[in-house]
Amino acid sequence: MKNLVIGLDFGTDSVRAVLVRSDGGIVASAVHPYARWANGEFCCAARSQYRQHPLDYLEGVEATIREVLRCCDPAAVAGIGIDTTGSTPCAVDRNGTPLSLLPEFSADPDAMFLLWKDHTARREADEINAAAHRPGGVDYTRYEGGIYSSEWFWSKILHVLRHNEKVRSAAFSWVEHCDWITAELTGTTDPLTMKRSRCAAGHKAMWHESWGGLPPEEFFSGIDPLLAGIRDRLYSETFTADVPVGTLTPAWAARLGLSPDVVVAGSAFDCHFGAVGADIRPGQLVKVIGTSTCDIIVAPRVEQCVRGICGQVNGSVVPGLTGLEAGQSAFGDLYAWFKRFLSWAGEVSLPKLEAEAAALPIDPAGVLALDWINGRRTPDANAYLSGALFGLVAGTTAPAVFRALVEATAFGARRIAERFVREGISVDSVVAIGGISRKSPFVMQCCADVMNMPIRVAASDQVCALGGAMFAATAAKLWPDIEMAMEKMNSGFDAIYEPIPANVAGYETLYRRYLRYAAATEKEIMADVR
Amino acid sequence: MKNLVIGLDFGTDSVRAVLVRSDGGIVASAVHPYARWANGEFCCAARSQYRQHPLDYLEGVEATIREVLRCCDPAAVAGIGIDTTGSTPCAVDRNGTPLSLLPEFSADPDAMFLLWKDHTARREADEINAAAHRPGGVDYTRYEGGIYSSEWFWSKILHVLRHNEKVRSAAFSWVEHCDWITAELTGTTDPLTMKRSRCAAGHKAMWHESWGGLPPEEFFSGIDPLLAGIRDRLYSETFTADVPVGTLTPAWAARLGLSPDVVVAGSAFDCHFGAVGADIRPGQLVKVIGTSTCDIIVAPRVEQCVRGICGQVNGSVVPGLTGLEAGQSAFGDLYAWFKRFLSWAGEVSLPKLEAEAAALPIDPAGVLALDWINGRRTPDANAYLSGALFGLVAGTTAPAVFRALVEATAFGARRIAERFVREGISVDSVVAIGGISRKSPFVMQCCADVMNMPIRVAASDQVCALGGAMFAATAAKLWPDIEMAMEKMNSGFDAIYEPIPANVAGYETLYRRYLRYAAATEKEIMADVR
Repeated sequence: MKNLVIGLDFGTDSVRAVLVRSDGGIVASAVHPYARWANGEFCCAARSQYRQHPLDYLEGVEATIREVLRCCDPAAVAGIGIDTTGSTPCAVDRNGTPLSLLPEFSADPDAMFLLWKDHTARREADEINAAAHRPGGVDYTRYEGGIYSSEWFWSKILHVLRHNEKVRSAAFSWVEHCDWITAELTGTTDPLTMKRSRCAAGHKAMWHESWGGLPPEEFFSGIDPLLAGIRDRLYSETFTADVPVGTLTPAWAARLGLSPDVVVAGSAFDCHFGAVGADIRPGQLVKVIGTSTCDIIVAPRVEQCVRGICGQVNGSVVPGLTGLEAGQSAFGDLYAWFKRFLSWAGEVSLPKLEAEAAALPIDPAGVLALDWINGRRTPDANAYLSGALFGLVAGTTAPAVFRALVEATAFGARRIAERFVREGISVDSVVAIGGISRKSPFVMQCCADVMNMPIRVAASDQVCALGGAMFAATAAKLWPDIEMAMEKMNSGFDAIYEPIPANVAGYETLYRRYLRYAAATEKEIMADVR
Repeated sequence: MKNLVIGLDFGTDSVRAVLVRSDGGIVASAVHPYARWANGEFCCAARSQYRQHPLDYLEGVEATIREVLRCCDPAAVAGIGIDTTGSTPCAVDRNGTPLSLLPEFSADPDAMFLLWKDHTARREADEINAAAHRPGGVDYTRYEGGIYSSEWFWSKILHVLRHNEKVRSAAFSWVEHCDWITAELTGTTDPLTMKRSRCAAGHKAMWHESWGGLPPEEFFSGIDPLLAGIRDRLYSETFTADVPVGTLTPAWAARLGLSPDVVVAGSAFDCHFGAVGADIRPGQLVKVIGTSTCDIIVAPRVEQCVRGICGQVNGSVVPGLTGLEAGQSAFGDLYAWFKRFLSWAGEVSLPKLEAEAAALPIDPAGVLALDWINGRRTPDANAYLSGALFGLVAGTTAPAVFRALVEATAFGARRIAERFVREGISVDSVVAIGGISRKSPFVMQCCADVMNMPIRVAASDQVCALGGAMFAATAAKLWPDIEMAMEKMNSGFDAIYEPIPANVAGYETLYRRYLRYAAATEKEIMADVR
């Protein structure tokens, strides 16, 4: 009887696999760090060039799946569901093989996957934005937040085409990491028929039903003739993750020790699977909290364009619902910055700093911080913004500033939730996943108080991979739909933070203050830029 | 032949004496810390109550003068000139004896001198300001910056009268520390005829020639009937420091080992004597730089009211010229705060921090600080303001913030100079005295570049006491006027910082940015207050 599924979660530094019972319960998990990546190969931090070799991915698939299968009957495995980082695109040849897997490109960074955080394509992003915002034209970025990022699919493609003639000549088409890995496992890598992820296409490649797929050829060739013809070698149809991509090739079945009838589900980006793993429902904002946050919400099919968020794609999270994405550019990163900052003077314990900060009262006239050290992602992306501190007096201490930074991250979170509500998307509670949510009760309570909403923390450290397992169970027909898989397989919650009324009132005053100082500061920063 | 004079400088923690040749050159100096003050007697930091016992002063006179006389012929001493902190008032009886010198008041804090930084009279200052700014009335604070401080003479008198009935009954009149100490040494303590300091009266007690002395009786009794009649037991005439108060009483002559014909010059506040000691001329802004700054400038008789500074008094610095005072609430204090702030993480070396900050380039898009951690003293006093930091990014380091703090103190300095110029008082160079000016070339060069003016640093650590010696020489007729004494006796300069043109241009951009962010932040802070 087939009652096991595998979720594979490709992160920035490693891939994780979980083996899950289709009626719930994680049986085993495994992690495999990327070997070439760990060596810094193909990367250049000074240029924000971050590239990954596909062999790191393939070796990780084998290592982690073989490890989780050790204590079970491989014949019981019905399916595999996979998420990856994104946008992490790569040039492929006519067969759908990443150029970096060909001997002549095996060391060429431009033939690798361009990791999400690669920022080499800044200039290309500017040009795409200029084209999208030409007066009288159609804004093809409008379902992706209205600002096309240097981290995304087309910016990176254009950058490589311009800077590497050899790759340009050899590239037949382009794939997202999540598109290619499922195609590779199932032997469906022909770029013209490859089953492309709805999530990746809609959130990062300007795919939208209303314009029949990708933007028209003239749009791309108008930006640069180098882009001419690529659109037709990509896709117009995309697939939600409950749709099977295929079954394992005999070669991969043998390599993994699995049956070739194991179904590989459609794929998506990690946070979207995380939202599913955390049992997302309409009205629940799922915050994946790490150095930054990815905020996911689903709503019955949204027709209007929701302004100022990162993107909205029908079916990108839960098939049948619109998946909406937002995010904070700095969350844990803000705390990490302050730790580095203080470290000039000596060793800093973040737990100690947090404990002292937590012991301070909510002070309506105290230190106030703006959380923009990495700019602002949502609402209303603005990369020019920077962080600020107000209310500094002779008695201001490091814990007081740390407390203000924590409050600022909570204010940033509230601002996103309020934007969704203002745009007609209801938000009535929060589900938090990711390291900080499980490690820092002070931060979570502060968020609950500031947002005046209960926050539940998912019980598992492997929520994204668990989401993959849920899609695997659905694609393999162990459950009729993803909603049922979510209900049966979710890991539950190990903490719930209810707003404390006295704190809610105190933070309300502070939040109003934050909004005023934020508006005044944004105005001055934009005056600097002009 | 009498060719020596003594300068006595009563500071916050100690009194310093210098013995100076009348043709220039410091022969000896001595310091005496206040014993009761060092023990914290009569003080309460939590209430900002800071009181000093007159015996601390008198013991200091004897100890320091006896020490500087050790290596010289006391018969050569012609005069003594004295400055003190201020406003530092005390209640006196009919004989001009501070109540604290009477047995029944020897431990009563309200019978002591209320040190300049005592802030117990906040409420009383508010009431005085309300009375002074009544529509249709005369603003008696207008030559003192338009805002009467809780640190000043009348606020403190009213506070003590309200809170201590015993002192109220026994107090016949009130004296400033600088008034009383010269009267005590010369036996001229009758409160009705005591020679009062022009500087103290004009800068802190609302004395002005244009209203014939102190404000009228109705003004004071209108604030509180407890003030009725006090004005008539004070003074209407005041004296510049070149006017002798008298000669030593036989008792003091004996106690000090000096001749009873030693002349005691008129007195003033420390920074004013410091300006004289630093050879002040019209157009030169003398900045006494410590934790805060006191900025002194002189100009040919100024008739108009200069707006937004701390005060203007004819003859308060150099007889015949108008003395104008401004100041920054935090200078060294801003650096000291940041050191304390970082110390949470470990031991901090300010010189190391400064060296790393100095090595950074002028960055027009870098960290920007507002220097208001203690509020703003000038231009346009505002105690509600607080410090701020802008432009924080993930790479912002402690030295970068320290550099921004140094720049902010320089911007605050420039703002004061610009205000003087806008109000018709010319400023073409700066003379700096005080610890930071001699210890930190980076800070001084930054000020010269930001202000685009040369800054000369006085060569002596005892510039205030040296100013006292100059007035002693003038009062004792060793020199015909203070200008001649300044010319002959100044200690010269041991450094000059010329603006570096490339830096001037860079800082100009940053200063414009500072003004914009400062205006925006002040607006938000005042919205918080309302």
